[in-house]
Amino acid sequence: IVKRGVTRIVTPSTIIHHDGVDPSQHNFLAALHGDDDDICIALWDLSTASVKLLRSNREQLADDLRRYPVSEYLVCRDGLLEQGQLVQAPQQSAADFARFEHGHAMALTMASAYLEGTQLRTVRPRSIEDLSARELLLMDENTCVNLELLRNMGGGREHTLLWVLDRTRTAMGGRLLRDWMRHPLYQQHAIEQRLDAVELLAGQYTLTGSIRDTLGRIHDLERLINRISLDQHKPRDLVALRQSLRFTQELRLQAPHCADSPLLQSQFGNMEDFTSLLDLLDRAMCDEPPVTVKNGQVIRSGYDAHLDQLRDVRGNARDRILHMEAREKQATGISSLKIRYNRVFGYYIEVPKTHQNRVPAEYIRKQTLVNAERYVTEAIKELETSILEAEEQLIPYEESIYADICQQVLQWFDPIINAARSIACIDVLSTFAEVAVAYDYRKPRISPDPVLHVQGLRHPVIEKLSVEPFVANDLVLNTDDQQLMIITGPNMAGKSTYMRQAALAVIMAQMGCFVPATEALIGLCDRIFTRVGASDNLVEGKSTFMVEMSETANILHHATRNSLIVIDEVGRGTSTFDGISIAWSVAEHLSSQGPIGARTLFATHFHELTDLERELHGVVNFHILIRENHGTLHFLRKVAPGAAPKSYGIEVARLAQIPLSVIERAHEILQNLEAREYSPEGRSSVVHSQDPPFLFGAVEDPLVE
Amino acid sequence: IVKRGVTRIVTPSTIIHHDGVDPSQHNFLAALHGDDDDICIALWDLSTASVKLLRSNREQLADDLRRYPVSEYLVCRDGLLEQGQLVQAPQQSAADFARFEHGHAMALTMASAYLEGTQLRTVRPRSIEDLSARELLLMDENTCVNLELLRNMGGGREHTLLWVLDRTRTAMGGRLLRDWMRHPLYQQHAIEQRLDAVELLAGQYTLTGSIRDTLGRIHDLERLINRISLDQHKPRDLVALRQSLRFTQELRLQAPHCADSPLLQSQFGNMEDFTSLLDLLDRAMCDEPPVTVKNGQVIRSGYDAHLDQLRDVRGNARDRILHMEAREKQATGISSLKIRYNRVFGYYIEVPKTHQNRVPAEYIRKQTLVNAERYVTEAIKELETSILEAEEQLIPYEESIYADICQQVLQWFDPIINAARSIACIDVLSTFAEVAVAYDYRKPRISPDPVLHVQGLRHPVIEKLSVEPFVANDLVLNTDDQQLMIITGPNMAGKSTYMRQAALAVIMAQMGCFVPATEALIGLCDRIFTRVGASDNLVEGKSTFMVEMSETANILHHATRNSLIVIDEVGRGTSTFDGISIAWSVAEHLSSQGPIGARTLFATHFHELTDLERELHGVVNFHILIRENHGTLHFLRKVAPGAAPKSYGIEVARLAQIPLSVIERAHEILQNLEAREYSPEGRSSVVHSQDPPFLFGAVEDPLVE
Repeated sequence: IVKRGVTRIVTPSTIIHHDGVDPSQHNFLAALHGDDDDICIALWDLSTASVKLLRSNREQLADDLRRYPVSEYLVCRDGLLEQGQLVQAPQQSAADFARFEHGHAMALTMASAYLEGTQLRTVRPRSIEDLSARELLLMDENTCVNLELLRNMGGGREHTLLWVLDRTRTAMGGRLLRDWMRHPLYQQHAIEQRLDAVELLAGQYTLTGSIRDTLGRIHDLERLINRISLDQHKPRDLVALRQSLRFTQELRLQAPHCADSPLLQSQFGNMEDFTSLLDLLDRAMCDEPPVTVKNGQVIRSGYDAHLDQLRDVRGNARDRILHMEAREKQATGISSLKIRYNRVFGYYIEVPKTHQNRVPAEYIRKQTLVNAERYVTEAIKELETSILEAEEQLIPYEESIYADICQQVLQWFDPIINAARSIACIDVLSTFAEVAVAYDYRKPRISPDPVLHVQGLRHPVIEKLSVEPFVANDLVLNTDDQQLMIITGPNMAGKSTYMRQAALAVIMAQMGCFVPATEALIGLCDRIFTRVGASDNLVEGKSTFMVEMSETANILHHATRNSLIVIDEVGRGTSTFDGISIAWSVAEHLSSQGPIGARTLFATHFHELTDLERELHGVVNFHILIRENHGTLHFLRKVAPGAAPKSYGIEVARLAQIPLSVIERAHEILQNLEAREYSPEGRSSVVHSQDPPFLFGAVEDPLVE
Repeated sequence: IVKRGVTRIVTPSTIIHHDGVDPSQHNFLAALHGDDDDICIALWDLSTASVKLLRSNREQLADDLRRYPVSEYLVCRDGLLEQGQLVQAPQQSAADFARFEHGHAMALTMASAYLEGTQLRTVRPRSIEDLSARELLLMDENTCVNLELLRNMGGGREHTLLWVLDRTRTAMGGRLLRDWMRHPLYQQHAIEQRLDAVELLAGQYTLTGSIRDTLGRIHDLERLINRISLDQHKPRDLVALRQSLRFTQELRLQAPHCADSPLLQSQFGNMEDFTSLLDLLDRAMCDEPPVTVKNGQVIRSGYDAHLDQLRDVRGNARDRILHMEAREKQATGISSLKIRYNRVFGYYIEVPKTHQNRVPAEYIRKQTLVNAERYVTEAIKELETSILEAEEQLIPYEESIYADICQQVLQWFDPIINAARSIACIDVLSTFAEVAVAYDYRKPRISPDPVLHVQGLRHPVIEKLSVEPFVANDLVLNTDDQQLMIITGPNMAGKSTYMRQAALAVIMAQMGCFVPATEALIGLCDRIFTRVGASDNLVEGKSTFMVEMSETANILHHATRNSLIVIDEVGRGTSTFDGISIAWSVAEHLSSQGPIGARTLFATHFHELTDLERELHGVVNFHILIRENHGTLHFLRKVAPGAAPKSYGIEVARLAQIPLSVIERAHEILQNLEAREYSPEGRSSVVHSQDPPFLFGAVEDPLVE
């Protein structure tokens, strides 16, 4: 009879078994507390016992949550989310969370109450990271999508920045890399510590190789120890833990070689000496235990004398029966005497009727057959009892020993979690080192000033994808004489790639990763904004222009002087005049003369905007070089100062065999357009109203002269 | 022992079995003959014995061939195609094809030689359609794709015009519908004949319903009879043929009800009376024959006396043995006598040894067993021989009868092929009638003049997809006062839908189908051109602007006054000035003052182009109505005369919460742009050069006055 009862309730966020969760991702329960203007969020990953605290508001909420792999939501009032498990708001927050501010404490209380309801045991997080308090480079979800950081446009993992960088060897490192990519730093010192660590590792080929080989043999310690603590583990988890700790010990040996990096040093410092735990596991656990402890054979022999004895009794049962049979044969002289077993009598002695006269007196008759009699003896009953008792005791006793070992392991919970986090960090840093060597990325210098000086900048993804050598470009942005780059040139020449690679370089640098450039000075960015043209979608029928404008408004409202802004076309989804007006006005607003003055890359088809260079200090024109060769166009992918040559489009039209008369007429019209471009004083007539009654006003002066 | 030998060679274009080919499509072998400037093409569908002749040149070749499901190419010299089976050019064309011009005759000869080489028998097409000589509405492949006629943008069948119209009940009808869609007519009389037929059918609900029920029970006659003629058939094909002919007979009964339509009448006229063939098949073929004739049971009993006799011999063998056994028992008086069979002796009589004395003299002893003797008799050997002979003869004899029936069926080849084609035609026409009733399509009037007057026009696909009622629009185009419509308005307002539905209405009308409109006067179009904006594709890195220009050049070179042109944005992939110049110049070229003067729908974001209305007779502005309501925009999908209001884009920007200062500045810039739009004389300054030194030239006059 099996003891039955609810031992836990499995919900999407409380699956913590191997096959239920993606090892490379967190699996969050999100508890939300607050009102529209201030929503406190606790993201709780039961499988790693880690919690992240966020802060959001109604407007940002969907965007903020989309960045995390949340599989369940808890809300304490309706309206906050369309989907979500509605729970009773706690009367007050649990004492454990008192150190957090009210909203977060309430969210944590909600989450822990819910999780305890599913696990039927106390659940406490081992680490709580308050992201709302940290200084991070902020990116909205849109920007993550546009730059294809973690997911490509199609939603897949291919051809993303993650796809280039993710050479992590451990599951913990994989998760940490994603965290770092979603939340690059905004603190010079912390970034430089990471960069120094990467530099040290990138410079020591053998050391790093050895570290990474060792990392490759460490299992998901974080989730292993959590499964053990939540009693959802199997004997093999302990074996995996033993192996992982063995290699963790090996990893610790490398600490002296990393002494020059304070960050690495502190990570190694966080790894305790697991010798005694390893010794316990070595002595206690078999090499290859079965899937479940219910079958025994989990504990190594020699660990526990009583267990060994029980196993001995069971294992030697047959020998002892044979021994006894031989002895009785000899004692009685009945060669056909046999000891047998059945379910009714247990062990018994069978003697053919022909030998009845020789049966000793101590034999107790139990059953009479046609040709034989069956007996038991005291000795045989004793033997039987000891065999059966051993079998009955063996499994529960082995289970109890196993449980005891788990308890001993759990005393190491915090050291193991700490080691896991250090391993993750060392994994990501050494991954950065490996990638830097593999793709020739260089260490950026970090500056608190809003500058961006990069030489030989490349796009990490396209560089990896392309067969031909990637054409590198330089980039200079500051908030003074080169604050807003207007980039003109035809479609597909490389404007988007150029701008994206600038944003990616900043993100990589602030993650602590080397950058795909020959030299880089990265001024810290507080936020990165991107506005990238979407293509029309007839079936969905969405107004892409409305989306475009909302994205632009978001930038204008939230960008600061320390932000980086990438605008790839604005104002295309409407009439040209409207589009130019909006684009121009937006550019002015972003310029150093306007209220924002952030470093800005601004690609546009509106050639009018190249006039901004004359009008506003800090605005500079750039274009992408193109060469015509025997009737075909070659995109040189090289960025050069100045506006794109205006007649490029008509040139292409000519190459495409548009009739000559049409081409000539187009040139004529172009000249007319250009003639109107500047006022008689040579100033861009877009910016300045023409002097109202120019017919008279403008005429008098020359007459006077 | 099975007779072995190559009976045919299977290649991609010579698969004609059910499961090998898509019943809804032809499966063509394309033979190409000629030089770069003039390539003659024979498209040969072995499975339907039909051939289409095309003409192309090197430039058009890929485009022309892409429209047909070609699975193999034959080329007679290298360089014409990258892939293709290289064959020896024939010395001269076969006499059978002498009536065709040289190139086509050669292509036909090549194809027939190749096919005969695979089929190892004479192969002749039953119908040869010279598409190069027919008057058809031409559309390049691009236009088929842009309008989503047969395939959607993703390559699937969903949400295409075919998806709306294809309610055909027969495989032949399905193929013909695709043919008609690829090749709408350009002959008023032929179109009107189709429309009249559709009108007749659409008006007679019961008649059409009954016709279509009957059609639904007719198999793919065309491919059935071809499989029989190529000896690649199974008995069930004859049964399917029989059923199909039975329902063809039933269909013919409807002829009198269709007397008012000459087209239907001629289709019915092409269907011969199959009574005698049906009688043959009824008498000869079983109801449910096995898969192959090798198992017999294919020919109905009663059809052939000798076959019946053979079957009788085999089928009654057991009875005759039992009968003989009883007779011998009685004759000999041995009740335990048995007649048995084994492989060594065949049939024999077994008599137990105890009865040996009663065995008659004529019994010939064959074998002695422990308890019995085995004998044969003359009678039993005769019986055996007749049984075995019958079995031996039965299958080959049945096969020969079956082959004979096939030969008789093949004498009906032409009538069956003709009937199949008529059935296909009746199927498509009645499909059009059914669709017209289902979706309230109306009969268009056809005119030889280049006009297009449509009231209440809808988009057939989007109408079917959308939940809300589709907003219908009127359309007037001619080559006089409303020749070129400039359509402005924001993205997604419905410009593309409006223009596409115009092109679809023309195609449907010229196919002979009713159109989704309340009233339509369709002036015949010789060609339809579309140029529709493609979205950028960063990974492919193609210059979409180059593609855009090539497509435009194609229109400018090939459009005539009788064409219909749909341009959905041109000049967007380059700088604004270039784009405007090209768009303007293209519009002038297409206008009635230019060399083309075709009916043109021209959507653009270049608001400048609305000035064309002032400059060129026949150019008219239209826009799509939009209403703002409580801060959100409603696309009314209604097309109205006049240019779109210019400030729409800035309005959207305001709704999207772009900061007010930016909005105000955009308005200012817009005014500056508008101020430059016209010369002091109020003429569009794009078209006309400004009077060179206007500073003085323009001033003197008022002073003089």
